[in-house]
Amino acid sequence: MLNYGVIGYGYWGPNLVRSFARATASKVSAIVELDAEKRARAAREYPGVDVTNDLGAVIADSRIYVVAIATPVSTHYYLAKAALQAGKHIFIEKPFTVRAEEAEDLIEEAERRDLQIFVDHTFIYTGAVRKIKQLIEQGDLGNILYYDSVRINLGLFQHDVNVLWDLAVHDLAILDHVLTQKPIAVSAVAVDPIGGQLASIGYLTLYYSSSTIAHIHASWLAPVKLRQTLIGGDKRMIVYNDLEPSEKVRIYDKGVEFAKSMEETYRLQVGYRSGDMLAPQLDPSEALLVAASHANDCIIRGVAPITCGQVGCRIVKVLEAADESVRGQGRIVSLSL
Amino acid sequence: MLNYGVIGYGYWGPNLVRSFARATASKVSAIVELDAEKRARAAREYPGVDVTNDLGAVIADSRIYVVAIATPVSTHYYLAKAALQAGKHIFIEKPFTVRAEEAEDLIEEAERRDLQIFVDHTFIYTGAVRKIKQLIEQGDLGNILYYDSVRINLGLFQHDVNVLWDLAVHDLAILDHVLTQKPIAVSAVAVDPIGGQLASIGYLTLYYSSSTIAHIHASWLAPVKLRQTLIGGDKRMIVYNDLEPSEKVRIYDKGVEFAKSMEETYRLQVGYRSGDMLAPQLDPSEALLVAASHANDCIIRGVAPITCGQVGCRIVKVLEAADESVRGQGRIVSLSL
Amino acid sequence: MLNYGVIGYGYWGPNLVRSFARATASKVSAIVELDAEKRARAAREYPGVDVTNDLGAVIADSRIYVVAIATPVSTHYYLAKAALQAGKHIFIEKPFTVRAEEAEDLIEEAERRDLQIFVDHTFIYTGAVRKIKQLIEQGDLGNILYYDSVRINLGLFQHDVNVLWDLAVHDLAILDHVLTQKPIAVSAVAVDPIGGQLASIGYLTLYYSSSTIAHIHASWLAPVKLRQTLIGGDKRMIVYNDLEPSEKVRIYDKGVEFAKSMEETYRLQVGYRSGDMLAPQLDPSEALLVAASHANDCIIRGVAPITCGQVGCRIVKVLEAADESVRGQGRIVSLSL
Amino acid sequence: MLNYGVIGYGYWGPNLVRSFARATASKVSAIVELDAEKRARAAREYPGVDVTNDLGAVIADSRIYVVAIATPVSTHYYLAKAALQAGKHIFIEKPFTVRAEEAEDLIEEAERRDLQIFVDHTFIYTGAVRKIKQLIEQGDLGNILYYDSVRINLGLFQHDVNVLWDLAVHDLAILDHVLTQKPIAVSAVAVDPIGGQLASIGYLTLYYSSSTIAHIHASWLAPVKLRQTLIGGDKRMIVYNDLEPSEKVRIYDKGVEFAKSMEETYRLQVGYRSGDMLAPQLDPSEALLVAASHANDCIIRGVAPITCGQVGCRIVKVLEAADESVRGQGRIVSLSL
Repeated sequence: MLNYGVIGYGYWGPNLVRSFARATASKVSAIVELDAEKRARAAREYPGVDVTNDLGAVIADSRIYVVAIATPVSTHYYLAKAALQAGKHIFIEKPFTVRAEEAEDLIEEAERRDLQIFVDHTFIYTGAVRKIKQLIEQGDLGNILYYDSVRINLGLFQHDVNVLWDLAVHDLAILDHVLTQKPIAVSAVAVDPIGGQLASIGYLTLYYSSSTIAHIHASWLAPVKLRQTLIGGDKRMIVYNDLEPSEKVRIYDKGVEFAKSMEETYRLQVGYRSGDMLAPQLDPSEALLVAASHANDCIIRGVAPITCGQVGCRIVKVLEAADESVRGQGRIVSLSL
Repeated sequence: MLNYGVIGYGYWGPNLVRSFARATASKVSAIVELDAEKRARAAREYPGVDVTNDLGAVIADSRIYVVAIATPVSTHYYLAKAALQAGKHIFIEKPFTVRAEEAEDLIEEAERRDLQIFVDHTFIYTGAVRKIKQLIEQGDLGNILYYDSVRINLGLFQHDVNVLWDLAVHDLAILDHVLTQKPIAVSAVAVDPIGGQLASIGYLTLYYSSSTIAHIHASWLAPVKLRQTLIGGDKRMIVYNDLEPSEKVRIYDKGVEFAKSMEETYRLQVGYRSGDMLAPQLDPSEALLVAASHANDCIIRGVAPITCGQVGCRIVKVLEAADESVRGQGRIVSLSL
Repeated sequence: MLNYGVIGYGYWGPNLVRSFARATASKVSAIVELDAEKRARAAREYPGVDVTNDLGAVIADSRIYVVAIATPVSTHYYLAKAALQAGKHIFIEKPFTVRAEEAEDLIEEAERRDLQIFVDHTFIYTGAVRKIKQLIEQGDLGNILYYDSVRINLGLFQHDVNVLWDLAVHDLAILDHVLTQKPIAVSAVAVDPIGGQLASIGYLTLYYSSSTIAHIHASWLAPVKLRQTLIGGDKRMIVYNDLEPSEKVRIYDKGVEFAKSMEETYRLQVGYRSGDMLAPQLDPSEALLVAASHANDCIIRGVAPITCGQVGCRIVKVLEAADESVRGQGRIVSLSL
Repeated sequence: MLNYGVIGYGYWGPNLVRSFARATASKVSAIVELDAEKRARAAREYPGVDVTNDLGAVIADSRIYVVAIATPVSTHYYLAKAALQAGKHIFIEKPFTVRAEEAEDLIEEAERRDLQIFVDHTFIYTGAVRKIKQLIEQGDLGNILYYDSVRINLGLFQHDVNVLWDLAVHDLAILDHVLTQKPIAVSAVAVDPIGGQLASIGYLTLYYSSSTIAHIHASWLAPVKLRQTLIGGDKRMIVYNDLEPSEKVRIYDKGVEFAKSMEETYRLQVGYRSGDMLAPQLDPSEALLVAASHANDCIIRGVAPITCGQVGCRIVKVLEAADESVRGQGRIVSLSL
């Protein structure tokens, strides 16, 4: 039974505690939270768990095997470093760190000590994304032509990162997972039309060595919530709507065919196949529980999880390059991932 | 009764003929079409109209008062110039021309001869866009923060312009119409992942001197058709879905409010109001018939239409600048409109 | 080339004229319409067709081979009888007649003269209903457990029949077409809560000798338009939404499985399979054109059409029995079809 | 602080425990559950609560002030009777009892002892239904013409009552709450086409002394989940879709107007107004928490709750009459409520 210490009991921490408790191979021994009111809530909800503001004691606690970090992103590096140095595996919220250097240092620290880093890119563990990965691997979509995602809503209140780091990060994780190729360049625009300190609307474009293009629209300023992703292949295309209750992934048997016109050779001639649409059954398991079980399993078996530190680091690199592009008014920034 | 000669009886020409015939102040005397099969179709459908391939005769025909041009964009300038020189008013499909210089020359020619140019940006005459303009003018939305449009489908077969000139042009016309300010810069990405000659996926961003931002996603390669526009103001926000049968415009009484946190001053603190949603009744009149009636009315009264040559020219300037940005890998190109 | 005379140029007549003109084997020679304004409209739209108020002349016209009847239902019998007696085939709007006796008399008249009766149950010729029939015939749904249809809207203005005869008639035709068994009894409720002369809300239930049940909700008093049909089989189930632009028929791989519980034998134990959803590509041809072509083909070949007089008569019998049930406060009325 | 004892920790019991714990005026002292596995789960989730299979001890426990009953319907009467006799207030799941006689006996018992009965018709406490009641009371809809509800899904596994008692009960509670008039008669059809012991598809019609009609379609055999209610008034109409995430109640400014035609007096002439649609903001509070707080408040203040025993009893009477109608093949059964 893996013992977890969970740091942070704000927005996401309670979900982590619940998931480690429900997963068969783990339990939660301690919760660290600096806010007294949130500590009281944790104590009420989990009477058998140590609830404390003494971070050092939990990190030093020899009964604790894994430290889960659900605190503001800016604190990730310091907390993760301390936990690794104390010989704990870490389970850490996304984005992994605020700088790629920090991510690399943590990866090195973990490797030296033979510890696992699990970055909580939860979407990777949804039935929808797992099905999409399978479809792409099987070649059902053919060559991937584009990925386009709209991930917008009337946003949450407090943020310590901008909207690309908060929302586009999910698409970057999905892209990293389902495509075999890695992007070679990024350009991004991010603005805050309401005059706040953090950009609340962002557009991010990824370029690949093939002609594949990916584009992400992230916003905290939309009147409606949308989670709508198009993935176009030359054989089939997917519409993935994460808000749809039962048919999140729709596979369109539509593709592109070429036909050369004799009489009008100066024009593009493209034919479109039309066909059936299939919404495959998806595994309805709760993604965070799948993630927790996978983390437990990898820690026990001593192998790297699907969303290991390297994955988290690649995504931080893209976000850092996107920030650079934003400062350069959307100019293209090269990536070497 | 204004006599129209209509040039081009392909995809859109039949709609023009029908609309000029239905409008109370106009009729169609002649149709010019080079393709014999399409001519036969026109003759069958409009037995009382001269159907011919003799362009010169129609342009010279003294009974004809207005020449409507529904031919490939590359031919617009030459046909419009000839018609104006023959003293005819013109009703011309969008985009107005392929280069702003051409548009300016036509405007000058028309002014010299006291003729009207009507550019057929049909969307401007829909009940939905007219309602949106009214809402913005009345101040119902407050300051406009952003405009975001997704205009995608599994596209039509033959094109003589790329997807930005074909689809984003609609949003450029709507923006020109409903916003008082004009954009000061544009950046655009446009690619053809299927290896054709014309870009089939495009992303275009407009910058304004205020912090307003506009973004358009246009594609011929989507498996589903979407026409979904968000317009965010600091008082209210609109979702305009042109495919919705009865509630195309939805006004969300949601906006943004600022609140400074005392304890966490390093974080952005924004509150969101939530409220009712109103879908106002829209004028259900067919937009093209409204456009035709407005064109007739302006020609008779000798005044410039809402979508006059200057409007058409501004939109061509943005599209030309977008092309330049695409060639420069998305770099920002200034506009002076 | 079959010559049609079309009687009635009100709501549906123009669609008939257009379809017979577009079908390859037919043309329209004459239109009969008593209203002067509608006659003027017909003359403007079809300059080559005789437009007249002289019904007798058209029925007697030896050049005319088929008489199409698109007049109020109460006139169907008299017009159809006259046309048959004059040796014309008939193409007649739904419902066929107001009484089954009339329908039977027309069938007998046609048989005696070797003429065809085509009842225009247009839905039968849609790609959606043709696909549903094929799926049921192939056994893809298994045994049919139920059919449930909601067919409501804020209704058209003038009616000469109540809402069951106007709207439920479509479902009765679909049921007659796609199910092999015929209903053995009907019960119906129909009311007019706004105090008009004709019932505007109706509920109709059909019973079959198996445990299959069919239910239809028809209304002219709904604020939204719905065309939503569920067909449940023990192997698969269909949701048919006729207003959906592209995926009208959805096949759910869901069904029912039995499992006896040992510990709780007093309770029903039913398991539900869950699975994929498939929206098959449908033939997008316009149903009325398919209907016209089929009518032409049957008349030329001398065979009964799919929606022949007998079909139309069975549906009138169900509607007559439904009226009887309504008068009896919903009591069950037996059918022998 | 009101002490609750909760009987039954199956499907709904855990929700009750959570809600009484979260409500400010109550806490849970004891949980009674006969199944050992469910008891173990309750003990794990609520370490501070007595979890037992000793029903008598809990009912006799002098510290317990309210007994909440979430057991199969057939046991409601006996458990409620025992709790009342022991001087406890009761909070009981819907439907209240299996027979109206039982309900009446419990009401009498409670009145004699000055105890409250709260029947958990949770829907009454949703923001949506509260808004609908307010709109009707204010006269915004005008006279109510009809209520039509579709409440279907691929159903839960085990049931001890048929689909009308399980699902239509919700609509009966909503109707009882939002309409001032009570139904005067009911007719119902309920079948089980899969050959189980309990009807799984039901249609229920309510008649009122005015021309108002209500109809409910309930089913456990649908491939999709629908919760779609239309309420038509002669001034405005509502579409209430409980599955819609944010705009559950839509008010259509559509109504019916009469106009007598001079030329066609034999026909019904009805005009329809068309207008705006408004989706009002709803109170997003969780309905069960609102219900628990209301129950606590009524018990403390000694007043009858909105969903008191009389309400629960009226609904049982309708369901009993519906059962009688089903046995009579849908014949009308009078009600005196």
